[in-house]
Amino acid sequence: MFDDLLTANERYASSFSLGHLTAPADKGFALVTCIDSRIDPLAVLGLEVGDAKVLRNAGGRVNDETLRSLILATNLLNVDRVAVLHHTDCAMASSQEEIARRVGERLGIDAPDRDFGAIGEGDPDEVLRADVERVRSAPLVHPDTHVVGWRYDVRTGRISEVC
Amino acid sequence: MFDDLLTANERYASSFSLGHLTAPADKGFALVTCIDSRIDPLAVLGLEVGDAKVLRNAGGRVNDETLRSLILATNLLNVDRVAVLHHTDCAMASSQEEIARRVGERLGIDAPDRDFGAIGEGDPDEVLRADVERVRSAPLVHPDTHVVGWRYDVRTGRISEVC
Repeated sequence: MFDDLLTANERYASSFSLGHLTAPADKGFALVTCIDSRIDPLAVLGLEVGDAKVLRNAGGRVNDETLRSLILATNLLNVDRVAVLHHTDCAMASSQEEIARRVGERLGIDAPDRDFGAIGEGDPDEVLRADVERVRSAPLVHPDTHVVGWRYDVRTGRISEVC
Repeated sequence: MFDDLLTANERYASSFSLGHLTAPADKGFALVTCIDSRIDPLAVLGLEVGDAKVLRNAGGRVNDETLRSLILATNLLNVDRVAVLHHTDCAMASSQEEIARRVGERLGIDAPDRDFGAIGEGDPDEVLRADVERVRSAPLVHPDTHVVGWRYDVRTGRISEVC
């Protein structure tokens, strides 16, 4: 099931030249974004391997677990600027009920009673602003951290500033 | 603070050619890995944009929030194989107490009483096996999902199979 990937890794390792890199983020940047396969986090921002910490979860949401990684990044790994990047056509831009219904349908069970971190069907910028505010107000994220909210358009590759 | 990144995005968008991609992962694959800036998840496995869902948190740990994304990926986004990829020289390969002490020191406060998802100083393969088992036994991850545990060597670019 995984042979294609491991064979490709052998090729990658055979010409590997990044063994000198260290853990701190060279450009002092962390990106929180979605797991969506259409987003290429480094390329989208002109970054190289070594430049940035990248956090990814369904929706690019900021929750307690996101803050865990950001507390570590801003206090111990040289990060002093953070962008939360949501995107157009996100699978999370649906209601909690609808996502639960679809998961249950696929599993052949009743809609599970579980939080799916849905963005909902309202104004997605409101959700993004709340996520950014959650980083800004987190007591253990280093207070010198600058935080912005951006939206990525999967049709154009363009980022727009939201907050 | 962010002009360098937004300017680079303008360049990226000006030659963007991936607007035809859709949300499902073309190669049916999801990778759970660390936020470490030395890891280039797609390149390491010979993947292209559109091929895979990538989940990243400090340590590449599997917790309830990781499972949220994997439930969505395996039930709604075409994923039927998952790799959990931990790595050498990980900042999380330290004790909870030591990480808390260092965060507190940086913030000028007492060591915070918070879970940092530490991997600890014991056998890291044990921690990886437990994370993989957490995916395998999660009731809402689609039961047809294949799950493996790998370790990435940041000095060589090489992946080794652990479980």
